[in-house]
Amino acid sequence: NIGIRDYQTSHRTIQLPGLVNIAAFVPGLVSRDSDDLQRVTKASIAAGFSMIRVMPVGKDGSISDVKSLKVAQQNGKRGTYCDFNLSITATSDNAHQISHAAGEVGSLFIPFNHLSDNISKVAAVEAHFDAWPTHKPIITDAKTTDLASVLLLASLHNRRVHVTGVTSKDDLKLIALGKEKGLKVTCDVNIYSLYLSQEDYAGCQFLPTAEDQAALWEHLETIDVFSIGSLPYQLAHFLNQSADVTVGVADALPLLLTSVAEGKLTVDDVKARLHDNPKEIFELHDQVGTSLEVEIDRPCILGAAGSWSPFSGKVLKAAVQRVTFQEQVACLDGSILSLPPRGNDMSTHGALPPMAAISSPAT
Amino acid sequence: NIGIRDYQTSHRTIQLPGLVNIAAFVPGLVSRDSDDLQRVTKASIAAGFSMIRVMPVGKDGSISDVKSLKVAQQNGKRGTYCDFNLSITATSDNAHQISHAAGEVGSLFIPFNHLSDNISKVAAVEAHFDAWPTHKPIITDAKTTDLASVLLLASLHNRRVHVTGVTSKDDLKLIALGKEKGLKVTCDVNIYSLYLSQEDYAGCQFLPTAEDQAALWEHLETIDVFSIGSLPYQLAHFLNQSADVTVGVADALPLLLTSVAEGKLTVDDVKARLHDNPKEIFELHDQVGTSLEVEIDRPCILGAAGSWSPFSGKVLKAAVQRVTFQEQVACLDGSILSLPPRGNDMSTHGALPPMAAISSPAT
Ligand SMILES: [Zn+2]
Ligand SMILES: [Zn+2]
Ligand SMILES: [Zn+2]
Ligand SMILES: [Zn+2]
Ligand SMILES: [Zn+2]
Ligand SMILES: [Zn+2]
Ligand SMILES: [Zn+2]
Ligand SMILES: [Zn+2]
Repeated sequence: NIGIRDYQTSHRTIQLPGLVNIAAFVPGLVSRDSDDLQRVTKASIAAGFSMIRVMPVGKDGSISDVKSLKVAQQNGKRGTYCDFNLSITATSDNAHQISHAAGEVGSLFIPFNHLSDNISKVAAVEAHFDAWPTHKPIITDAKTTDLASVLLLASLHNRRVHVTGVTSKDDLKLIALGKEKGLKVTCDVNIYSLYLSQEDYAGCQFLPTAEDQAALWEHLETIDVFSIGSLPYQLAHFLNQSADVTVGVADALPLLLTSVAEGKLTVDDVKARLHDNPKEIFELHDQVGTSLEVEIDRPCILGAAGSWSPFSGKVLKAAVQRVTFQEQVACLDGSILSLPPRGNDMSTHGALPPMAAISSPAT
Repeated sequence: NIGIRDYQTSHRTIQLPGLVNIAAFVPGLVSRDSDDLQRVTKASIAAGFSMIRVMPVGKDGSISDVKSLKVAQQNGKRGTYCDFNLSITATSDNAHQISHAAGEVGSLFIPFNHLSDNISKVAAVEAHFDAWPTHKPIITDAKTTDLASVLLLASLHNRRVHVTGVTSKDDLKLIALGKEKGLKVTCDVNIYSLYLSQEDYAGCQFLPTAEDQAALWEHLETIDVFSIGSLPYQLAHFLNQSADVTVGVADALPLLLTSVAEGKLTVDDVKARLHDNPKEIFELHDQVGTSLEVEIDRPCILGAAGSWSPFSGKVLKAAVQRVTFQEQVACLDGSILSLPPRGNDMSTHGALPPMAAISSPAT
């Protein structure tokens, strides 16, 4: 019996810095008085993520102007359990408006494949490249020829761009080509895309095909970051599962560390893609006194908390043992200690261009 | 009666150098023993075009390997009435093969919107950018996001690319942006696209909309070249007209010069786009002793030759009066003088990179 043998193997304990989820999906982000952000940050800190970059697209709307940003900021003031920052969504006609909010958010997200508010015209995307401050990151979920359009604009404007949620071999190839040719492009893959494919869930277009998934694993060197993204939530919806708003958060690290246990990834592969690279790409703040302890090769059954996950009941080979946040133990063996929420809205960190901050104030 | 008044106006005679049609469509190009190339060159010289760049896509196949190139070359040996050069078509898997034919053709054509053999994958196009000699032109008919893909590859590889048959405002905008940002991109518009729109022929997708057509006229400064293209042939097919293989050739210059008569274009606008720019972009040879005489403001009824054209019977305000080719009058008032065909296959002109031609032979 495999389970018993697993329980008998010895395990190793590893220290990691506080991790970053660069694409946290918060369904009720712009819904008045929603506690989704609070709940997602709580699940995040328990899972080892001490910083989340919140995707500016929720279930019922997106952060696309000053008004919707205010709602999200207000929800952030209910108290959060890890640090977070907010971004803003580009639409076909809000290039001017969002320049007013640029100082209060971490980045601009240009959606092509989201539930609503997608951009279709190159001219609209171009307007955003012109209006958005040059020192602030631009993120997109563009695929195939849309991806080529965005990379072209990045190339012509000599700007950095980050591609989130890559699922296909061809897109990864195009990104690799861009990197090879000196384009400032980085990318992330949703962790679920590494472990689930259309072979597991036929017709689930937002998952990679089995062939594409194999290509993601083959070309890990092109993938800068692993993220959670909205994929777990979309999958639950696709399967008509009434999932928790935090679906996918608890699975993330155990899945990756199980691959470490199986020799498919190294601890450094994971650390680079959940801490070092996210911090560098998005110029995130240092989180003093924040770290975690994980155990690898220790069998652990997922989903004890009772909420749905495609991995519920599966035996994984790793677990988060302890999370320390701001010098205090926040989490032990997956249970949050009852501490007050001490996360901060870090959206304005790095909001000013380095030169302007030193010299005179903007006019 | 307008006709009579027109006949009484005075007209002016203008000298032009031999013109270039950079996108000549030859239906039977790769059909064994076809005289289509001969017929197209004959109609071309009569219409003032002393040099044509033949599109490598015919009605029943394309020049896509050494074998099909041989058939087209053989058809060229039947005798042609103006100079011409041949190109080769990129397909999804012929990047290696065509590198063997590169020395014998004028350029590489990457089709996205042709009847057959279109390329869909960025990776396939990328293979062509890598395989094709850097000093030789690349031409594409890509539109919208496909156009963005090609421009991205051109940008990343620091290569020139020419976009043929532009029909939309958005594509022209993207090209203008590329030019503004230093991308080496040029483009042409089919002459029929300047005079016919989907308002004239509902459902005819390959014509511009009326709005797009207005944008073409508004942004003439972005249009480097006017061409004939396969549009006249496609239109005839769409309308179930049994058109001659030379359809569109005789109309081209009278249409443009009528716009000169009406003050919408200058003679220099036309000369730049049918001679100067084509020669520069495609590094074409000088045609010594070749010129034409046109009359502007002289009313002329199109289609006297009897073959179908959408402009048959229309009174235009210009006509080609005399064409001199290689120091001999070849054409007078639209009638070809009975001279032997003296056109040359110029495909290998400029086939060697300038440096290699001067220094040591290639290894
Ligand atoms: Zn750190
Ligand atoms: Zn304003
Ligand atoms: Zn711009
Ligand atoms: Zn800082
Ligand atoms: Zn000349
Ligand atoms: Zn070979
Ligand atoms: Zn390449
Ligand atoms: Zn020469």
